[in-house]
Amino acid sequence: MVSKVVFGRGSFTQLGEILAPERLNESAPFIFLVDDVFEHNASLIAKIPLLYKDQIIFISSEEEPKTTQVDKLVEDIVLNSSVLPSGIIGIGGGTLLDLAKAVALMLTNDGSSHEYQGWDLIKNKGIYHVGVPTISGTGAEVSRTTILTGPTMKLGINSDFTPFDQVILDPELTEGVSKEQWFYTGMDCYIHCIESLTGEYINSFSKTYGETALSLCKEVFLETLIQEESQDKLMMASWHGGMSIAYSQVGVAHAMSYGLSFLLGTKHGIGNCIVFDHLEEFYPEGVELFKKMKAKHNISLPQGICANLTDKQFDIMIDVSLSLEPLWENAIGKDWKTKITRSRLKDLYSKM
Amino acid sequence: MVSKVVFGRGSFTQLGEILAPERLNESAPFIFLVDDVFEHNASLIAKIPLLYKDQIIFISSEEEPKTTQVDKLVEDIVLNSSVLPSGIIGIGGGTLLDLAKAVALMLTNDGSSHEYQGWDLIKNKGIYHVGVPTISGTGAEVSRTTILTGPTMKLGINSDFTPFDQVILDPELTEGVSKEQWFYTGMDCYIHCIESLTGEYINSFSKTYGETALSLCKEVFLETLIQEESQDKLMMASWHGGMSIAYSQVGVAHAMSYGLSFLLGTKHGIGNCIVFDHLEEFYPEGVELFKKMKAKHNISLPQGICANLTDKQFDIMIDVSLSLEPLWENAIGKDWKTKITRSRLKDLYSKM
Repeated sequence: MVSKVVFGRGSFTQLGEILAPERLNESAPFIFLVDDVFEHNASLIAKIPLLYKDQIIFISSEEEPKTTQVDKLVEDIVLNSSVLPSGIIGIGGGTLLDLAKAVALMLTNDGSSHEYQGWDLIKNKGIYHVGVPTISGTGAEVSRTTILTGPTMKLGINSDFTPFDQVILDPELTEGVSKEQWFYTGMDCYIHCIESLTGEYINSFSKTYGETALSLCKEVFLETLIQEESQDKLMMASWHGGMSIAYSQVGVAHAMSYGLSFLLGTKHGIGNCIVFDHLEEFYPEGVELFKKMKAKHNISLPQGICANLTDKQFDIMIDVSLSLEPLWENAIGKDWKTKITRSRLKDLYSKM
Repeated sequence: MVSKVVFGRGSFTQLGEILAPERLNESAPFIFLVDDVFEHNASLIAKIPLLYKDQIIFISSEEEPKTTQVDKLVEDIVLNSSVLPSGIIGIGGGTLLDLAKAVALMLTNDGSSHEYQGWDLIKNKGIYHVGVPTISGTGAEVSRTTILTGPTMKLGINSDFTPFDQVILDPELTEGVSKEQWFYTGMDCYIHCIESLTGEYINSFSKTYGETALSLCKEVFLETLIQEESQDKLMMASWHGGMSIAYSQVGVAHAMSYGLSFLLGTKHGIGNCIVFDHLEEFYPEGVELFKKMKAKHNISLPQGICANLTDKQFDIMIDVSLSLEPLWENAIGKDWKTKITRSRLKDLYSKM
């Protein structure tokens, strides 16, 4: 679990105070990985406490994070400084948070990040790393994974060393997100809850977190809240939803959206929505409520994104999806292989 | 926050596996502080993985933990071993968990534990410490405090170093607790929720934890659950209730029960119940529900425990209670001193 967390509107201004005791020395910089949507946001940038050799690196979140991107960032940081940084701070959505976690790990573990995709392959503790979410839903701020697209697979680096040492939850930072992005990312959390709560791996621990997050999602997406309350509640939903899957597992929507993402580069939030919209047979109640939320917020999902794919392309998506065995086992049960066939997946993908 | 946690029926058997990588060397023992109710429980004792110079110390939880008791335990451990232990494992209720946290801190901080009662006075990280609750409700497994009775005050050692490094939540360990103790300790959690949720310090973070815990308490104490479900849910209620107050504060019941405890040695769980039973004016709905729970489980609380106290004794309780300023401020507001007078407290104590 994340060992330290502050929560509150405006709490981002505490960043300097939080980092100060963690600075190793004047030569060891803090590296801030910041979503480039904030590059011209003077008010946010002014609050990043730069001292000595500290550095901001702006990164686009237009594409999902990649192992090659992590390796390049690590190489640049190492070339740029004679000593290891004091810490890595990720400021942004799931992409930036996952990049920050991966970079912090790869600064102390040899080789390429793709060698660590999987479960508990990381050998050494990473350097100090801090997460500051600026959009709510992914749960990346609390999870023990960092999900990367590698040469052969979209898969997380899951380890006890992955979680942030410190998280700052400041709901004010989520202001200015577009309605679509807010919805897609928020639905990531909603789908986490449905997949966790209906899965085989569910237990009393995860259930209490999942039910809390689900109830917050329903308030945010089906009721009419004032903006501040809605921001606060969605940030907490993301947190609890992330905790719920940390001790259980996701399911069909994630297994299939990873395929879309690997082949077509579909971003995670919207990809989950595109897939989940067609999963009535697996999650009847969850999908019904999802369609209500979609209607209430006038969201039109892209249609026919798989219309012109070749058989070879379908095979690639199906391979990626089927490789995520724990997700299928959680969703369907130990005998999932008898029920989830390649042709069934192809039929489902064809509808999207 | 606690950085590592396992949850599950039977998870206590993982203790050996969890401790192995934390052993510093063969000379540095793990010290197990175990509630002496388990001294003749062969099944539990057999699961404690003793190796090399590891040691079990049985401790009675008949009395609330004291600073002198912590100092004595630390002294004995230091005299007994030439090197610092590899870790301290507390197995029991709030008393044992708080003792384990305090001993782990005092092995690396000079002087007497009473010098650290307060907020953020601890200078050095304690040694590795693990908490294994065997009764649910106190939230001691997740809190950043260890509440001790010192020479002048009952007050916690609150610090970022206090929380456990590892917690094992195994609901099976709560089997065999008497109905009364189960109720009193469970009500500690219920009262945490009421005090946190109705307090001035409440925020969206604490609220989500508090509401989750409150809803679990209502299920456990007002509905009819099968035993396993009830044990699982109360263990999770304790966890979330503890998280809720970690980021907010408790209130009138705790402020007043500390007075009872300091003067009369009243144990925390029953002390909270005795006080809360008379707090309708502060928590009307919470007290009404408490009385329903009490009736459902045929609990008779002790009456007249303050009947024969002298004025001087009342003054001691009132002094202890009024010294807990953050609790009163949370419960009543910044102007609490105009509303909470010594005579009002004396009237309340006199009813108990």
